Amino acid sequence: MHLTGIKTNKAVGDLGEEGIIQLIQQTLPQKLPSHVKKGIGDDCAVLETVEGRLLLVTTDTLIEGIHFTSGTISPDALGWKALAINVSDIAAMGGRASTAFLSIALKQGATVRLLESFMAGFNAFAGKAGVVLAGGDTIESPGPVVITVALLGDCLKEHVVYRSGARPGDDVWVTGPLGDAAGGLFVLQNKEAFPNPEYKSLVDAHQRPTPPFEFGKAIAESRLVHAMIDISDGVAKDLRHICEQGGVGAVVQARAIPMSRDLLRLAAVAEKDPLQWAIYGGEDYELLFAAPPAHRKKILAMTEQVPGRAAIKIGRVIEGRGIWFETEKGTKPLEPGGYVHFSR
Amino acid sequence: MHLTGIKTNKAVGDLGEEGIIQLIQQTLPQKLPSHVKKGIGDDCAVLETVEGRLLLVTTDTLIEGIHFTSGTISPDALGWKALAINVSDIAAMGGRASTAFLSIALKQGATVRLLESFMAGFNAFAGKAGVVLAGGDTIESPGPVVITVALLGDCLKEHVVYRSGARPGDDVWVTGPLGDAAGGLFVLQNKEAFPNPEYKSLVDAHQRPTPPFEFGKAIAESRLVHAMIDISDGVAKDLRHICEQGGVGAVVQARAIPMSRDLLRLAAVAEKDPLQWAIYGGEDYELLFAAPPAHRKKILAMTEQVPGRAAIKIGRVIEGRGIWFETEKGTKPLEPGGYVHFSR
Repeated sequence: MHLTGIKTNKAVGDLGEEGIIQLIQQTLPQKLPSHVKKGIGDDCAVLETVEGRLLLVTTDTLIEGIHFTSGTISPDALGWKALAINVSDIAAMGGRASTAFLSIALKQGATVRLLESFMAGFNAFAGKAGVVLAGGDTIESPGPVVITVALLGDCLKEHVVYRSGARPGDDVWVTGPLGDAAGGLFVLQNKEAFPNPEYKSLVDAHQRPTPPFEFGKAIAESRLVHAMIDISDGVAKDLRHICEQGGVGAVVQARAIPMSRDLLRLAAVAEKDPLQWAIYGGEDYELLFAAPPAHRKKILAMTEQVPGRAAIKIGRVIEGRGIWFETEKGTKPLEPGGYVHFSR
Repeated sequence: MHLTGIKTNKAVGDLGEEGIIQLIQQTLPQKLPSHVKKGIGDDCAVLETVEGRLLLVTTDTLIEGIHFTSGTISPDALGWKALAINVSDIAAMGGRASTAFLSIALKQGATVRLLESFMAGFNAFAGKAGVVLAGGDTIESPGPVVITVALLGDCLKEHVVYRSGARPGDDVWVTGPLGDAAGGLFVLQNKEAFPNPEYKSLVDAHQRPTPPFEFGKAIAESRLVHAMIDISDGVAKDLRHICEQGGVGAVVQARAIPMSRDLLRLAAVAEKDPLQWAIYGGEDYELLFAAPPAHRKKILAMTEQVPGRAAIKIGRVIEGRGIWFETEKGTKPLEPGGYVHFSR
């Protein structure tokens, strides 16, 4: 089969990650079986295996040299992160993560200590999130270390929150400061100039993200939100998914973007623009959601119940298309960005 | 945490794949939550998400340079095989495969044609097996191509068949000829001496295995079998899993091992022992099961209903430990073998 409008000798890299996903989708049967409520295109697949209860499934791969390097993350932190980023996807649907499957491709020289350390990190986050490891695959890699986690979760049918659903007039919220993970990666990549201990909170944000999975489930159960996604590729790109799937636009206020003191301090010392990290950095694994203004007080009250979390309103959903960025100097389109796989 | 009896600076490669799995198991909480009926250690994980109905989950990774090379498999066949080997795991539990998740790490230079071709193979087998692709992850690999499929399936609680459960006196059956996939790989690796067209059935067995998924489900629903596994690592190794988990031994009769005419012809021309391929080759993706002799007629009648399939009795389960191989020259222990990941 040939796909409309794409030359077959073109490199998939030129399509970008979203182009590749579209290409794969075009090869699939048009009609999904009735148990698949949502296939490709949200944080998780959504399957109705039993009337009224949804099974949520997500999978994410981390590959050495693309998603991490041994210089910027320890095996322990990698184990933590490999699970945490999948729990983040379940949280973004409003679900509870339950059962994980781990495929791990290690180099032949990998030591028992390395695997123990990886599992210690994985198990630490699993314990925190109430997830059990129930299977997987261990293989030898002739090249980079490759970690794939598949994760199951569930929720009631009336509680699931999709990326679509945002309506004009909705507030746009995030669950915590943005850019810390990107700042942490910058610190790790410039170790000599910026010693870790001074920027520990940023390094931790990069290495051991803790997505607000309890909040995600609670806000979904409260039915206060119209649309939700996790921030893995940067707010610019992830908000774009919400807008495209909802057929709406958005305005983001620059001064409302939450940034930590440590990130601002690093930016000042490094002479960098912290907003670039906050908007385009990605890997924050906070949640971004759209909710009607009438629910503001309830949403703020809910976040106060979660230690260390505070929802912050960063903008609003508007009619039409496009994402706009309001700064002191005026309003301009928020350029797409975020980490793009297969980009050159 | 340190694990009993293993030096931490030891290479994981020295543990072998099963040692690694044991090591991972030792790091996990001792007690599984009640919804996990079977965690690590069978063809699939088994989750009871609803009273009486089981969710089966399996995941398998194929990595270039270990499981395949571009010289021995086309993208099209790789797509087929990546799904088929997972469907085989669901079949080995007696389940029906339903929903797949595909993580695919491609090289930057990979063409659209390659991805289309991969998906054509994947979708062809998906259509055959009634599986829908509902999600996944596409990433860029700086090294080898890596394919991970996670697959969900289901069955009724009373129909699931575990690896454990074989009893002394049971017959040991396989669902089809063994060694064809290994013979096919040999042909592909020696293309000049052995042209493909002459050995097409063997090459197909290696590249496009078609596990007997309908038979697996039917035999499980008939409740005629005590234990079942799919033959991925070779009958010597896979029968060992059945024996170890059942606390039993087995005798295999050399003359009963089913081998195709094409395999015997190849072995004669290549001056190889076809039994080596049949016993140790692996990747046959036939089913191996143990069932009481009282059910022989029913089992044979069932296989006659499945076109192109015929169950063959290759031995029997005995008390005690160990697997014995009966040949014309006498009975000797069947040495462990099969493909061992991380072996040197």
